[in-house]
Amino acid sequence: MALDPARVVSQLRELQELTGDENGAQRVAWTETWDTARAWLDGLLSGLPLERERDEAGNDWWTLRGDDDRAVLIGGHIDSVPNGGWLDGALNVVAGAEVLRRIAEGATPPLTVRLVNWADEEGARFGRSLFGSSAASGSMADQDELRELKDRDGVSLPDALAASGVDLDRALEARSQLESAAAYLELHIEQGPVLESMGLPLGAVLGTYGVERWRITWTGQAAHAGSTPMDKRRDALAGAAKLALEIREIAARVGNGAVCTSGGVICKPGIVTSVVETAEQLLDQRHLDASSLAELLDAAQAASWRFAQEENIEVDWERIWSIEPILFDPSLIDLCDEACREVAGVSHRLPSGPLHDAAEVARAGVPTVMIFVQSLRGLSHTKLEDTREEHLELSVQALDRLADATIARVAGG
Amino acid sequence: MALDPARVVSQLRELQELTGDENGAQRVAWTETWDTARAWLDGLLSGLPLERERDEAGNDWWTLRGDDDRAVLIGGHIDSVPNGGWLDGALNVVAGAEVLRRIAEGATPPLTVRLVNWADEEGARFGRSLFGSSAASGSMADQDELRELKDRDGVSLPDALAASGVDLDRALEARSQLESAAAYLELHIEQGPVLESMGLPLGAVLGTYGVERWRITWTGQAAHAGSTPMDKRRDALAGAAKLALEIREIAARVGNGAVCTSGGVICKPGIVTSVVETAEQLLDQRHLDASSLAELLDAAQAASWRFAQEENIEVDWERIWSIEPILFDPSLIDLCDEACREVAGVSHRLPSGPLHDAAEVARAGVPTVMIFVQSLRGLSHTKLEDTREEHLELSVQALDRLADATIARVAGG
Repeated sequence: MALDPARVVSQLRELQELTGDENGAQRVAWTETWDTARAWLDGLLSGLPLERERDEAGNDWWTLRGDDDRAVLIGGHIDSVPNGGWLDGALNVVAGAEVLRRIAEGATPPLTVRLVNWADEEGARFGRSLFGSSAASGSMADQDELRELKDRDGVSLPDALAASGVDLDRALEARSQLESAAAYLELHIEQGPVLESMGLPLGAVLGTYGVERWRITWTGQAAHAGSTPMDKRRDALAGAAKLALEIREIAARVGNGAVCTSGGVICKPGIVTSVVETAEQLLDQRHLDASSLAELLDAAQAASWRFAQEENIEVDWERIWSIEPILFDPSLIDLCDEACREVAGVSHRLPSGPLHDAAEVARAGVPTVMIFVQSLRGLSHTKLEDTREEHLELSVQALDRLADATIARVAGG
Repeated sequence: MALDPARVVSQLRELQELTGDENGAQRVAWTETWDTARAWLDGLLSGLPLERERDEAGNDWWTLRGDDDRAVLIGGHIDSVPNGGWLDGALNVVAGAEVLRRIAEGATPPLTVRLVNWADEEGARFGRSLFGSSAASGSMADQDELRELKDRDGVSLPDALAASGVDLDRALEARSQLESAAAYLELHIEQGPVLESMGLPLGAVLGTYGVERWRITWTGQAAHAGSTPMDKRRDALAGAAKLALEIREIAARVGNGAVCTSGGVICKPGIVTSVVETAEQLLDQRHLDASSLAELLDAAQAASWRFAQEENIEVDWERIWSIEPILFDPSLIDLCDEACREVAGVSHRLPSGPLHDAAEVARAGVPTVMIFVQSLRGLSHTKLEDTREEHLELSVQALDRLADATIARVAGG
């Protein structure tokens, strides 16, 4: 009847044996390997008094009825990217299954407890992530676009879903699953270097960053590298170079975890004998606070206009994508922080750079929190992804404590 | 018997009608259109007491015997890039033909005077420029590589040359042409914005820039744009951005016409969600003074090592190509300056960024100078290339004066 954190680690290794290969995890959603993984996960919970359900979006639910219909949810995803890591996603649901088993083997809980395995968090096959959780949260507004998506073999998303028994037109009916939800808990590897650099195993996640993603085009004038004096040039690369450096100053000024990245610059004509005529620059800015995110963007745009003037070039901004910050529930963050402290002695509050299913659930209004466990070297989405076994075990314990504390808090009103 | 500068302009327009199309000049070396242009040029000199010769490298020579075998050479090239301008190359030889005609119609000159039309200055078909002049100068050391060159249709350079009656194995025998040379004069459009920006029609060229051309590879670490704090990054683009800006400070510090260009940066993985792992940067540095050129390179390399340390990334330098500065003859530069001043009232001394056949002749030890005439908007190698007619006429007059002054100077000892 006791929690067995070490069993979670050996189960994760078993899953990797079953569904991975020498290149890493291969649990890509809407494939046979994913089906194998989902059936294996269900097997972990056999013999327990649980209701099983696959909803209209392909999410799997295991429900332990309690004294009250209000439910505490524990969630994650067993799908992975191709050649992925053994922990991203799978840790969440395997640890969640262990916690659910521990609770189910005890007295009837005061609240209903449910484990959910979200369908297609990664979006690896069709390029659309958070499929199942965005259907359940009701935020899936792009069904017309989804209908047009094809994988690299030309198979359409609706056809692949149908092969797994999911009807895209009915996916949003999964919204009913969250009607009784009183809280949502998710454990995940950090996928970043913060906890490792602080020497900490665990942290409480404050929310997921808001993101501003832009394409910035600088336009100058191609000119011969030999015959054009320096003061006669209109060099598009100069604008991009200044901005690539300036966004770091802006991030430092705004602070509080602000990150700004220029992921690349494409130069044309891009030859050694010509001044650059156009430089197309990628920009990604993230912050947990909406007004700080707006400040990052405003400062970068203002700087770009100043640089354009200084360099006698033009600059044009085109938004690629954006999302607002999604904050987790303050009292659940406190509970999570306590749970981490109880099992590891220390904790740390940090934002999440990547999005997670938890963000979709939080957007739907369900009080939500995540636990992060340290990632070695911050690596993820590669077979090199790893976490120390003792940290994995601590994370299972923390999730267990957090589940108990959340049940008690919600049941106590 | 008088010089007729206006005729040169109308002859150049006639040549463009004969060998160009709506996309510009098409006088690409080792093509039928080039043969047409060469025959047309010969026709300009019909009826004069000249010796005609095509040398072993395909260069055409017209020789007016004087009282002395020592020869003053006037040269240029009638070949163009595809979709090129009406003046690049052709101005030199058509103006030279007019000057030679004027001299030939007068009394026997004290020195021999020769016009040369160099073969394949542009290297447009096979990517190897200065073919004929480098054969005559003896600097053509890459015949094994030349044998392997193919055009876009797969025709080899030796086969194309053979079709024009040139045997690559004998091309270096053209060296004998320079044995009697006492001076070499070449008129060319500037192909840059300097004279136009100063409001000057003509200038005396000091020599051709030395060039250092490098590929610089910055290596950092790919990292997630959302989960990697700013102080944990090793951003390869930061190194490239700093250097792209620093080379401008270095050029300003070294001065005297120094130019430094970063023609492009290729970023990998080059996606919006990742810090840049490798940035491959192109660098081109030029100066007329060899020690200043070395200073440009030293300063850029030292800066790059500093930036690599600051950013905790690596930097690697790989030389693509280099050439030393080639200085023209000081007393011919003085004569050229005087000739420009006589016809235009003002002159200016300036270096040449691009290479020219004149550089090859100077390397062979022949006292050499060039006249530059203003280019509108600095444009060349495009059908938009242009120069005002009054400036073209002034340039023909200046070449004529310079030829007379050079003959007098050499004949006078």
